[in-house]
Order: sequence, then structure tokens, then C-alpha cells
Amino acid sequence: DQNISQEEVRFSTMATGMLLVCGLALFLTIKSNLLHSQQFTISFQRPSDCSVEQFYDISSQSCVKCGPNQSTSATGLSCECVTGFRVLATNGASITCQQCPLEKTAVTEDGYGCILCPGSLTEQGTCQCPSGSILGECQRCQASLINTSQSCMCGSNILVSPPSIIRVCVMYGFKMKYKFRASVYTNLTACQALGNMCVMNMHSFSSVANDACGLYNTIFRATAALGSTQDISYWRANLPWLYYGDQPGLANRVLQTEPLPTGFSFKGHINLVAAVYNARGDFLQWEKVGGNNLQLCPDTARRQEAAYTFGTAYQETCVLSVADLLRVYAEPLFYDVFVDLSRGEDRRLLPLPTRNLNQEYNRKFINQGNLNDWYLSRRVLLVDTLSGREKSLGSLPKVIRIASSLVPGTQKGQVFPPLLSMTYSDVLITAPNTQTVSVSFAVDYEMDQAEAHMKTDIALGVLGGVSVLYSLVKTASWKRRIGSPLIDMETVLKFLLFYAGDLANVFFFITVGTGLYWLIFYKAQHFVSVLLPLPGLQEERFVAYVGCAFALKTVQFLHKLIQQLSVDIFFIDWERPRGKANKTIQGTPSPVSIWRTYFVANEWNEIQTIRKISPTFQIMAVLFLLEVVGFSSLALRDPWSDLQRPPQSYSPPYSLTLRYGLAATLWLCIGLLQIIFFTAFHERFVEDKIRQFVDLCSISNISVLLLSHRCFGYYIHGRSVHGHADTNMEEMNINLKREAESLCGQRGLLPNTDTQTFQISITSRLRLQYDRILEPLSRRNGPSRLVDAASGHPFDQSTKAYHTMNRFLGSVIDHAHRDMEYVVRDKLFFERVIGMEFLEPMDKSIFYNDESHSFSDVLFYGNEATLLIFDTLFFCVVDLGAQSFILAGVLTYVQQMIFRLIRNGIGQRNLANKTLVDKRFLI
Amino acid sequence: DQNISQEEVRFSTMATGMLLVCGLALFLTIKSNLLHSQQFTISFQRPSDCSVEQFYDISSQSCVKCGPNQSTSATGLSCECVTGFRVLATNGASITCQQCPLEKTAVTEDGYGCILCPGSLTEQGTCQCPSGSILGECQRCQASLINTSQSCMCGSNILVSPPSIIRVCVMYGFKMKYKFRASVYTNLTACQALGNMCVMNMHSFSSVANDACGLYNTIFRATAALGSTQDISYWRANLPWLYYGDQPGLANRVLQTEPLPTGFSFKGHINLVAAVYNARGDFLQWEKVGGNNLQLCPDTARRQEAAYTFGTAYQETCVLSVADLLRVYAEPLFYDVFVDLSRGEDRRLLPLPTRNLNQEYNRKFINQGNLNDWYLSRRVLLVDTLSGREKSLGSLPKVIRIASSLVPGTQKGQVFPPLLSMTYSDVLITAPNTQTVSVSFAVDYEMDQAEAHMKTDIALGVLGGVSVLYSLVKTASWKRRIGSPLIDMETVLKFLLFYAGDLANVFFFITVGTGLYWLIFYKAQHFVSVLLPLPGLQEERFVAYVGCAFALKTVQFLHKLIQQLSVDIFFIDWERPRGKANKTIQGTPSPVSIWRTYFVANEWNEIQTIRKISPTFQIMAVLFLLEVVGFSSLALRDPWSDLQRPPQSYSPPYSLTLRYGLAATLWLCIGLLQIIFFTAFHERFVEDKIRQFVDLCSISNISVLLLSHRCFGYYIHGRSVHGHADTNMEEMNINLKREAESLCGQRGLLPNTDTQTFQISITSRLRLQYDRILEPLSRRNGPSRLVDAASGHPFDQSTKAYHTMNRFLGSVIDHAHRDMEYVVRDKLFFERVIGMEFLEPMDKSIFYNDESHSFSDVLFYGNEATLLIFDTLFFCVVDLGAQSFILAGVLTYVQQMIFRLIRNGIGQRNLANKTLVDKRFLI
Repeated sequence: DQNISQEEVRFSTMATGMLLVCGLALFLTIKSNLLHSQQFTISFQRPSDCSVEQFYDISSQSCVKCGPNQSTSATGLSCECVTGFRVLATNGASITCQQCPLEKTAVTEDGYGCILCPGSLTEQGTCQCPSGSILGECQRCQASLINTSQSCMCGSNILVSPPSIIRVCVMYGFKMKYKFRASVYTNLTACQALGNMCVMNMHSFSSVANDACGLYNTIFRATAALGSTQDISYWRANLPWLYYGDQPGLANRVLQTEPLPTGFSFKGHINLVAAVYNARGDFLQWEKVGGNNLQLCPDTARRQEAAYTFGTAYQETCVLSVADLLRVYAEPLFYDVFVDLSRGEDRRLLPLPTRNLNQEYNRKFINQGNLNDWYLSRRVLLVDTLSGREKSLGSLPKVIRIASSLVPGTQKGQVFPPLLSMTYSDVLITAPNTQTVSVSFAVDYEMDQAEAHMKTDIALGVLGGVSVLYSLVKTASWKRRIGSPLIDMETVLKFLLFYAGDLANVFFFITVGTGLYWLIFYKAQHFVSVLLPLPGLQEERFVAYVGCAFALKTVQFLHKLIQQLSVDIFFIDWERPRGKANKTIQGTPSPVSIWRTYFVANEWNEIQTIRKISPTFQIMAVLFLLEVVGFSSLALRDPWSDLQRPPQSYSPPYSLTLRYGLAATLWLCIGLLQIIFFTAFHERFVEDKIRQFVDLCSISNISVLLLSHRCFGYYIHGRSVHGHADTNMEEMNINLKREAESLCGQRGLLPNTDTQTFQISITSRLRLQYDRILEPLSRRNGPSRLVDAASGHPFDQSTKAYHTMNRFLGSVIDHAHRDMEYVVRDKLFFERVIGMEFLEPMDKSIFYNDESHSFSDVLFYGNEATLLIFDTLFFCVVDLGAQSFILAGVLTYVQQMIFRLIRNGIGQRNLANKTLVDKRFLI
Repeated sequence: DQNISQEEVRFSTMATGMLLVCGLALFLTIKSNLLHSQQFTISFQRPSDCSVEQFYDISSQSCVKCGPNQSTSATGLSCECVTGFRVLATNGASITCQQCPLEKTAVTEDGYGCILCPGSLTEQGTCQCPSGSILGECQRCQASLINTSQSCMCGSNILVSPPSIIRVCVMYGFKMKYKFRASVYTNLTACQALGNMCVMNMHSFSSVANDACGLYNTIFRATAALGSTQDISYWRANLPWLYYGDQPGLANRVLQTEPLPTGFSFKGHINLVAAVYNARGDFLQWEKVGGNNLQLCPDTARRQEAAYTFGTAYQETCVLSVADLLRVYAEPLFYDVFVDLSRGEDRRLLPLPTRNLNQEYNRKFINQGNLNDWYLSRRVLLVDTLSGREKSLGSLPKVIRIASSLVPGTQKGQVFPPLLSMTYSDVLITAPNTQTVSVSFAVDYEMDQAEAHMKTDIALGVLGGVSVLYSLVKTASWKRRIGSPLIDMETVLKFLLFYAGDLANVFFFITVGTGLYWLIFYKAQHFVSVLLPLPGLQEERFVAYVGCAFALKTVQFLHKLIQQLSVDIFFIDWERPRGKANKTIQGTPSPVSIWRTYFVANEWNEIQTIRKISPTFQIMAVLFLLEVVGFSSLALRDPWSDLQRPPQSYSPPYSLTLRYGLAATLWLCIGLLQIIFFTAFHERFVEDKIRQFVDLCSISNISVLLLSHRCFGYYIHGRSVHGHADTNMEEMNINLKREAESLCGQRGLLPNTDTQTFQISITSRLRLQYDRILEPLSRRNGPSRLVDAASGHPFDQSTKAYHTMNRFLGSVIDHAHRDMEYVVRDKLFFERVIGMEFLEPMDKSIFYNDESHSFSDVLFYGNEATLLIFDTLFFCVVDLGAQSFILAGVLTYVQQMIFRLIRNGIGQRNLANKTLVDKRFLI
């Protein structure tokens, strides 16, 4: 053995040959923890577990009783005859013993003959040389695969016992590319060696070729009479177990029919053990899988161990030097991998089915196709530096193939057996010192997402249907508000726009719900109940939903933005010139100062883009929580929920689903907290810009008429209770003081009420009149602008229109127009809920009391929900694309800034156009 | 040898014993690239370099010629007698050969005897057995360190040649804790073995104890006559080189006197090679240091290689399993490490001096103290699993010591030899399967920073002196502006406050300069010229400077903030009631509307905290560049300047200096770009809030008087050119149109000028009058507030004061007060530069034309430099503390928000108090 291993080391430095390196991927298909039937599990026995009368059968990996008159040999892997018995016959796997006759009581050193001793006997029953003489004896001939004809060269003066029959498993006929240097003594190791050759051939065979695997199968079929080992029909006695059967669909049944007999504790360890053999078929030892026996990439023990932590997605890829591989893996090792299901004394193993992607069957890569066609196997090797030794396969490609993933379906409620997937790459050795090869090792967990998908689809269907109804109501409400009963293309378009918004919400809440579900159930579970969707196919649908939500939300947001930018607004100045007498007598009336209107317009301009939250604080807080506090580690694909990980620990890849769930949840939570803070504290105790504006209207004796639709809008009643507001500081202060001390009337539109803000449904007649007054101005802004500008008097027109409108609207509010009367009433609860007015304003306009300042609907302020969800989706979509929360934060900030600028800029122009206040005062 | 190594492997699993694990640190002390003298370099020869007549002397690591009648042996490590010659004598290191006599032409197998052969001779000159007979011969006895007395047991029927004398280096007298199982054949390996024992003893010796190192030194002294090897006096012939001399200060001379003979190319590789010996003293091979032969921590080759990339700070720490160490390092290896200076054919090595921190000299850890006391050594081992084998040293501590850093000074302009620093930890083996040990490997580069420090100190001194002068000027200017000639405590305090600000700037620019210097010169160099300051001591001073800059800047910032929050301001309304005639006749004058004042006050309130840049955009842009674009990788301690690193590559630690330099530079650059954008584009083409405010004053017929000091301030002349502004929309539009068409006068204070903004130095008399008018109000806000509030008329007082002030200031501007006259003049260039007025306003106030709107000095807007530097320092200080740019960004945002709220809130209250405008209108 020593010589052979040294020779192999020397061989390994030869630069001609082939090196097979595997990319390893361990795919564990798992669901839950029910105890079930125990097909395919074996009892875990090690050589040390065998009693004195048993030997360890390396083929069946179990203890087997020795025959009569036999005891265990020193290695424990075979039996030998007890003292005084010689080996009568052997079939390689077992021996038969016969007692030596009385005339020849001593057994030869090789155990096959009985001799008479010149001296006394040793304890072992062999001859003992007298002092001064040496025991000359020729060793029994060794058979090797190559040189079976060579005779045994011995010295002439030594006794030679006749060679007994040597049986080897199969020594002929298959085309091996290399010399096989094993010393084959028994059937057992020879059969293992044959199996290993088949493994090095990638388990490939065809019905015609008679190579290692073909021979294995021939023997397998021929020895059917020997029966199976360990009650597993694919495992023939004395042969290694290499294949599961070739029945169609067997792979599917093996992987998905029988659940694992024990429950996997989430956050526990997967215990894998492997029986290790060398190329000669010798059983070496049982090894616990871990550290670097399956992982070729070097790394610290702590990180490598993370691969076997249940539920942790593990992925490691590295580039290895071919020279190192040749040195370290000079001799290939073969692993029979099992899951160790032992619980205390009950030691049981579950064989791990292997899918070798390089396996050919009739020259076809059978395992790269459909699950039903797979041909599962057993026994793997990591690096094969042996097969390629004597013949250079220069024509092979240098392409390195890395483990790819696979998606078997699963049943519900159980954990199914893990699957070991191997991909091997052929590396043509040209310059081993500079050549490198890339290998990867991955552990992934998969759950059938069909049920989750179905649930999602049901939710989507139901909510989608509800949102159709809701959008229809919205469209109806819109039709009423624009005062048009006709159903035309515009109506359909409007319906689609409303539907986009509602559907966006449906998608949003379904995706956030899904993300949150995974976040909570995946990260908080102690026992396996859910496993994350795998990246790629399983997450594709989720990402598509998020994309839909974002696209539809964008449509809704732009629609709202455009609506807000074209709202009609007018400031009604109630102030009348003082000293009316003067006016008629002297012709120099003190004009009513326009500055109050400027002030109010300016304030309106400023509150256009204020929001219920601070959007920048929002971004900063989310970034802080994600990146500084470390919430982002909750999105890692492992079952731990620690926020801060030690830098040396293994860091698994991120899950898109978890990232989305985490980011959206954090964003919404912080948004809600901000809204609560601003509503409950800031607006009450510090500053409420909306209420301030209403107050300002009242103090400045100016009312605001807002028409968001043709016949619907809002009215802020700002008539001063003091009659005059256009006055000096002294009077203003007195007014304010009087009001503070409740010495004057109430501010409401109706006497003795406080209600200043209304939603209004106006009659078409009123609207027509409104439009008529503005007509000259809209013409000015229309296409014939140049002509009008040339005609000379835009200012005149503007001020004339302003005064007309002011007078007209003032008189309407003052009930001075008989045919434009209005009534004030409360909105019904149901009207509030569905956002639609039941009464049509036929003869009279209707003013609905509105304490909740719903005029802010034409501002950013009143659309916080839409904006918040839009921002959330924007942030998440950028993050899904770029996997960077910081980039998402920065881009969200830029997005907010741009839309704020647009809203402010165009809103300001609209304000100047509609209220006739010069843009220069909107600063 | 095979048996021994197997026994050792078996030993290694014994859990009793001692394991020495080293923490390794390679400290390379480096400067530049001058060729210099070549002391201590040796020629690089390998066994394969020796010719046929030479053998490789493992002691001197060079080829040595064989004696007469000798040729190289098969191993190449010794000579043997040529055919027909026997070994006459040997001293262990070399042999003498003698020709065999004619009657005994054959040489015995061991080469020491001449015999007569029964048959013919082989080619090697030994006996050849006839076919069928075997060559019986007893092997020469082997001597072992323990059992020299054991006789050689041989069969009786074999020829035995007399044992020749076996010489071993020193076999007696030292107290070894363990059996030494080496087979010592020659002086050479025995001496190496002795050296290795000394290395395992941590090179420790005392003048009394006679242990391995003591014996080594005894032999070293005793064999002075043999001379030295390779011209190095510390390297005795036939002995390994273990120590540099023990002269005081030798370490200093070795490390810092002689620079390296070749220049190190930055971004190149450090080539280290090592001669490897085993514990028995056998020379194994020359190894290129790299991969994991000095690095115990497992990692990918790519990352491990980064350790030897010149200029990259490398640090790796990991926890290893003791069981693994026992398995992998069953046999200790000893390394003689050299720097490979080879250039083409000229192959030279530089021995790497080693500082073993565990080395004791007379029971004192000599190498843990001052550089001058160090006792440098050679030859290191990584893991010693041998020494502790037979006796459990249970009393040793379990503490693990990790490599600590050291700071030798350097000379200028050269690269000095690297130093290898080793710290070993004793691990008491109790449960090897669960025990772990922490090891670390680091490569660090050091440059003497004394010169840089000196330059910094000089800059600091000079600039500090200048800033004293500048602060004195500022104090003088302030004295003038408050109109007080007295030097009192307040003056000193004020001087200190000014000085704080100036000194902060000095510190800031010196630190940014330093950071930028390192950033540019370290990251851009191709050859060694600068090396980063080491973390810890060398960076301490830098961090202290940054801290000073931040603390002083904070003082300055708070000072400015408080100044701004207490500025005096008044809005002068030029509007007079219309139709003066009416007033007297009817007694009902139309009051001048206060709303213009409200408007202007409201605008002033809003521009208080606007800035020249967008502070949030600033944070976002910096975060984007640092974390998304990847600028942060410029702060890594390696000489690469790539922004994006592949995830598998080694990531060195961050340098505080570089982080600061990078963050501050980016912050300043983006700030400057923003200022340029806003000044050159935004303010010109989109919106200039300051100019808008001045325009608004003019349109609204309101002037603003700002007094930032007692007798100094600003004046914005806002008198309407149309006489009246308190009018209706029609007239306003006409006015605006007239002005646009230049149909009216100019806005300036002086006729036919445009200058509306002035700096003003007012006389004390004017100020007294000003204060006198406000006195009743300040009393109201004063301590006697309750009494006054009870007395009833705060509003009256307020409006009365307002009107009085309005009339008074209006008349002053209108030159209506003889004794409060003023002149308008331009400021001198020098006055502008040093920010001080030369003329004292004795009789007349002085109005200086000020086109640059310097009234913004009392707003955030005019103090952008201070704010920007404060923000920069805040960001950097948080980052230096927490090493997180994101946290720094978030906290900077919070800081900006808080100060903006303070400035706005208190500024608003101050505005309301001073201008007598009710707070409710400042919205």
C-alpha cells in the first residue's frame, strides 16, 4: 500500500491527464415533521460496534456473524479461522475452516495449509522458530489486475505452500483507460473497486458498451439469487449500491412519496455521515460530513458549518489551483452519503439519493431533463485525479460546469429526503501550476409553492373583483361630479384609471402580506413549517406582482398629480371699501388692498406640497433601521433573526421576497408612526398648516372656492367676523383679541356655526356662469394667445374678470342670486364611506359640512396614502432591481424632489392663472 | 522514518500535552527605493543548483564542494566515497575516503568497511549475491538520543561489521521535556535538530540554565574557530543561524541602518521564500511563502495572496479547532524565512529578522520592551505539537496571545528590512475535539511619521498665529460695531469665540489637507513613496486634530446661531393714508393696511433657514457616491484605487485618515458644486429667494432695518417708486407693468441709483433713540412681565411703539432729523477684505453701498461656509467614531433638522418680538 500511494503521488504531478472536479450542490427538499414509514433507512453500524464473533461487512455496511470455527481478524473487516483451523475454501467474501489433522497441528502463516513444526507452536498456532534460526516462508502470491501471469519469485531455500485460488470480482473485458493498481484479495474490495470505477465513469452506461458500469449491472443482474442487503432491493449483497432502479418515475417516488421519518428541527443541524472508500475498494472509515470533506472551497470551520444548519441557504464558489488539487486529492475518495437520523440509542441512517448531472444513459444526459426521467444513483467522488492518468484526453473541452438548481414538486406536510446533485467538469491539464478551476457548493431548501400561489391567486381574484366594483362606484361618482350622464370613451378611460389605482392597492397589499408572512413565519419558526421560495422561478411571480403594483400605482399617482395641477381655484375677497360715502362724492375711493389676497394665495402656494409625513425623515429612518441597526440581515436566507452578525460568520444570500417584505413593512410602519406623530402631536401642539390656512382665510376676510371637478369642489368660508380685515396693526390686534375672548360672532357660513369648510356640489348653471366669466382669460391662454397679446389689454381683462368673479361669487354665497341658490346639509354616513353624493344638484347647489378639511384632497396633504404607497413601491422596486437599500433611498429622494418640483412649479402657474394673482407674489 | 512519523501521528492524538500556536505578524518597515550596501544578503542556492561535485550544505544553505575521491550522494545533501573507496573517518559534517586494498576490493553496504566478496561486484562497488542466495548483512546501529546504550540485535548467521563512531552534535545535559526520536546520523542534522529544539524553547535562554538554547550558545562560542557561514558573523558553520548578536541596540541597527538593496515596486509582490526543516533537523525543501504555509487561517488562495501584495494592510484572525491542528500539524516544521531579492540571474536572499515576543532572556521577556533591548532571532515554527507530548504542563495559562504591533522609527528615503513578529500561545490540551484556539496573521507597513508630524505642527503654528491676528481684527471690528471702546471680560470672551472659529478652520484645512494628501499620494503612487499612518498611535494625533476642529467649529456655529437669534429687525412702512384731506375733515381716515408688513415679515420668516445648498441632497449625494458608486473602497488600506471590488477579493481594514480625507473631500466638493449650481444657474434662471425678498420690499413699499450689532447692521431700502403699494389688483398690475417698462424712477435710496441694500454704521445717538422707543416693550418681556401684563395694555403699547418707531425711522431715512444725519458711501476694498469699517460713525451714521446682499449674514444663507464645514465635520466625526457613513448621514440629517427647527422657532419668536408683528401671521 505504501508503495502504491507513493507512486500515485508521483503520478499526480504528471501534467498529462484528466482531472475531474465536481461542483456540488446539496438540495434538500423539505416540508414538515411527521413520523412515517421507514423505507430506505438502514441501521447505523460501525466496525467498532461489531462483537467478537462478527466482522464488518464493508459491502452492506453492517456487522455480520463469522462462520463456525472463525473469529474476527485484527482489522475487523473479515473473519479468520480460530487456532488449529486452516482455511479450507474461500469465495472471496467468506471462508470455510477445517481443523488441522493431528499429524500436522501447525497452520502456515497464510492460514491455508497445515504443517508439522520443527519446534513448538506460537499462541496463534503457527510455528515458532527456535532461537538462532529464522522462519523462512514464502508469502502467498499477490494477484494484481495487470500482471496475473507473473510467477511468485521466492528464494530457493524456503518452503513454498501451494497458491490457493484467488477470486476477484470481475477482472476482464472492460475498457479502463488506466492501470488499476489495487491489490485485490477478496471479492468484497474487488466489487467495491469495480463500483468506484463506475463512479469515475460518471455512473454512465449503455445497453451495448461493456464498460465498468455495464459490468456492474451485468453482475447485479446475474447475482439476483444472492438477495439484497439491508432490505433494499437496489443494494445487492457483496456489491456496492450504485443505482436506484430504472423504472420510469422512480426518482419522483423516491424523492416525494416517502417523507423523512423524523422531524427536522429548524435551527438544528443536518447530520450527514459518509462511508469512505478509496479507489482500490478499501473501506476507510465513517466520516461525519462537515468541515471540508464535501466542501472543496477553503474557509473557516465556522462558516463551513453554516452549510449544515437547517434552513440556511448556503452558497460558496471559489477558484482553486489545479496544482493544489493534484497535491491534495492525489488519491480519489468515494463517499456513500447518509442522513444520520439517530436519536439516542436508535441509530438509523437514510441514504441520500444522488443526481449526477453528468450521468449518461445510452449516450444521453438523462439527469438533465425531466424529473420523471432521472436515474438516481449513490456514491460520489469529489476530485478524480486517477482516471486521466495514462492517456491524455486532449480533445475534451475546457469548459467548467457548475451546479445548477432543480425544482422537484413536493407534497404537503412532510419533509422529503434531501437530494445530492453533482455536476462534474473535465479539466484538461496543460499547465497545472497556473491553471485554475472554479467549483461551487450550495445547500438549498425548497417547498412546493403551488398552494401559496393558489391562495395568492384566490386573494387576487376576490380583491380584484371587489376593486372593480369600487372603481365603478368611483366612476359613477366622477360622472355625477362632472355633471355629465353620458357614458363615453372618457368614462371608460376614467374607469380604467380608477381601476389601476385600486388594483395597485390589491397587488400592493397582497405582496406586502406575502413578504410579511415569509418574514414572520420563516424567521420565527422553531420547527419546519415554511421554507422560502427559491430565487428564480419561484420568486418570478412575486416580482411580477410587485412590478404590476408599482406600474399601476404610478398610473394612479400621475393621474392624481394631473388632476391636482388643473384644479380651479378662486379667492373671494369679502372686503368692501370703507367710507362708501366718499366714493360717490369725491371719486377717489380708498381702494381695497389686494395684499390679503396675495398673502392667502402665497400661503396656498406653499401648502401645495406639504405632506402628513416628512418624506426625507422617512428615508433616513428606513435607511437607519435597515443599514445601521441591521434590520437588513432579516432578509438573509437563513432562519436566524439576529440583527447584528459577527463579521466572521457566514453570510447567506438575500431573499428578494424577504427584502421586499422587510423594506415595505418598515416603510409603512415608519410612515404610520410619522402620521400618528404629526396628527396626534405635531398638528395639535406645534403647527397645523391646513388649519392655519383656514384661520388665515377668516382673519383676512377671504373665502376660497375650489372646483376639483366641473360641478364639485370645496369651499372655505373666510368671511371675517369683524367686517373689515384690510386695516392697520392696531385694529388687527384688537380684532384678534376680541375673537380670542369670544366677543364677536362665530366664523361659520351659517349663523351661529363654526363650520368653515364645505364640500360643494354646484349646479351646472352656476358652473356655466363661472366659466363664462373666465372665458376671456382662457382665450388668452388658448391657442389665439399671440393675437390677443397683440390686442393689448391682458391686465385689464384680468382685473375685470377678477372683479366680476369676486362680485359674482360673493353674491352667490350671500344668496343674492335667486337662480343660483344653495342649501347646506350634512353628508350621510354612507355617502362619506363610498365617496359619492346621492343627491344631484339640479336646482340648488348643495354645500356639505366638512369638518375634516377634505379640501386637502387637491393637495399632496390629502393624498398621503397614495404617496406613501407610491414611495414604498418605488423604494422596493429599485431595491429589487439593484439589491441596494442605499441606492433605493437616494433614488426615492430624487424622485420625491422631482415630483415636488413639478407639483410646485406647475401648481404655482395654475394658481396664478386661475386666481389672477401675479406669479411674482407666489414666492 | 516511516515508523517514527506514524508514531508521531499516534502521539498527536494524545490529549495530554502542550500545543504551541503562534500568532504571526509580519511587519514591514519601509520607505523608498534606493540601491544600497548589501550586508546580510546571501546568494540563493537550491539543491538542484549544485553541480555533480558539490553537495548542498543544509547548514549554510549553499553548495559546497565534496572532498577528494568523493561524489554527491543520491539526496544531494551529502557526499559519498566514489566506487572502491571506503569511509575512513567522519566528523558528521564531512567524510574522508580511503581506497580499499586490493585484497578487499568490495565496500560494505554501509560504506565503512572493505571486504572480500564471494561473488562479483556491483556497479556501486558492493558485493553482488549469486542467484538463489540472499545478501545478509546487519545494518549499522542507529543511535538515538535516548537509548545510545542499546545494542544492535542481529541474527547470528549474518556478517556484522564493526560499528563506527557516531557523532552527534550535543547529546547530553540539556533538560528536554520530551523524548527526541530523531535518528541522528551526522553533525549537520543533529545541529539543526538542536537548533529546532531551541526554537521550540522560544529561543529563550539564561546565563545559568543549560537547556537547548544554552547549549546552542555554548557550542556557538566554542566553535568560533570554524568561522562563519555566508560572511554573516552570527551564522556559525555547521550550525543553524538562530540569533543576531546580543549587543545593545543591535536590533535598531539591523532594522533601520541598512535599507533594502532593491526598490520595492508598489503594487508589486513581496517574494518570501523559506528553507523548511523538520524537527529531526532534516532539510526538506525551499518553499515559496504564500498560500497557507505561514497563514494558519484557511481562506481562498486569492485572498491569502493579498497578504503579499506590497502596500496592502492584511489582517486575518480565525478560530481553529485544536483537533484539526493536531491532525494537520502532527509534525512541527521550522522555517528560515528570507526575502527573495532576485532579479533575473542575480539570485539573492535577505534574511528576515524575527522578533519572538515569547523569547526570554534571564527569565525576562526581552522582546516586549524597548526596541534597543530586543534580541532578534531567526527560524520560526507555526505549531508545535511535539514539545508537550510526554508531560502535561497543566499549570500553564490558557490565555491566547495575539500579535501586537510595534513602532520602530525609520530613516528617510529607503526601504528597511521587514521584521517578522511572532507571538506564541500555550494551549493546555484538555478536550481537543471541542477546544479551539484563536490565531491571527497580519501584514502591516509603517513609515516614520515624525516628519509629517513636524510639517503639520509648523503649518498649525503658522496658521494658528495668522488666525490670532485675524481674530484680533475681528474683535476690533466687533468693538467698533457695538460702539464700545472698552476692553473688558466680554471683549476677551468675544476674542476667544472668534479665535475658536478661526482655529477650527485651521484644524479643518490641515486635517482635510492631510487626508487628501494620503488619499492622493498613497492611492496614486506606483513606487513606494508614502505609507499610511498605522491605526492607533500614529493616527491618534490626527483624530485629535479632527476632534479639535469639530469642537471649535461647534463653538463658532453656536455663537453665530445665538447672534442670529437675537438680531434687531424692524419693517419700516412708507405707505401713508390716501386722501389726506378726508382725514382731517371726516375723522375717518382709511387706515394703512398692515397686510404688506405681514407679507414681508412672513417672507423674512421663511428665508431665515434657506441655504445656498440643499443640505439633504448633499447627504444623499455623498451617501450615493460613497456607498453605491463605491468611493468608500478608496479608504481601504491597500494601494488600489478601484471603486468596485469583486466580492471574493480580500478586503483590508479601513484607514481612519483615508476615511476622513475621502468623506471631507467628497462633502466639500459636492457642496462646492451645489453652490456653483445654485449661484450660477438656479438663482439666475429659476429662483433667488434673497433677491425676491428685496424686490418684495420695493413692491410692498416697506424698508427693512436690521441691526446685528449695537451700532452696525443692514438696511434694505424698499420705498415704492409708485408712492403707494397698498392698493387693489388693478393698480398693482399697472405699477408692475410701468416698472417693467422702466416708466418710473429707480428704486435706490439715492436718486437715480439702483442700490437698495446697505451696510450701516449708526451713531450711538440713533441707537439710543431706537432703544428708547422699544423700551416699554422690552420691559414687557423683562422680569416685571407679570406686573405689566396685569396693568393691561400690551397691545396698545406694542402698536404705539410700532407707529413711533415707524415714524422715527422713516424720518431718519428721509433726512428729517438734523442730529441723526447719515451719508452714503462705498466701502473701501480693504475694508471689505478684513470686514471692518475704518470710519467711526461719530456725528453722522454711514450707509455703505452693498450690492452683494450681505444682510444675508444674519441668515443661514450668508453663513454657508460655516454651516458646510460644520456639517462636514459632524459627518466625519460620527463616521470616525462609528465607521459607518450611513449612520453619519442619518445623524447629520437629524442634526440639520434640529438646528433648523431651533433657528426657525426662536428666530420666529425674535422676529415677532422685534417687529411687533403677531406670531400668528408668521406661518
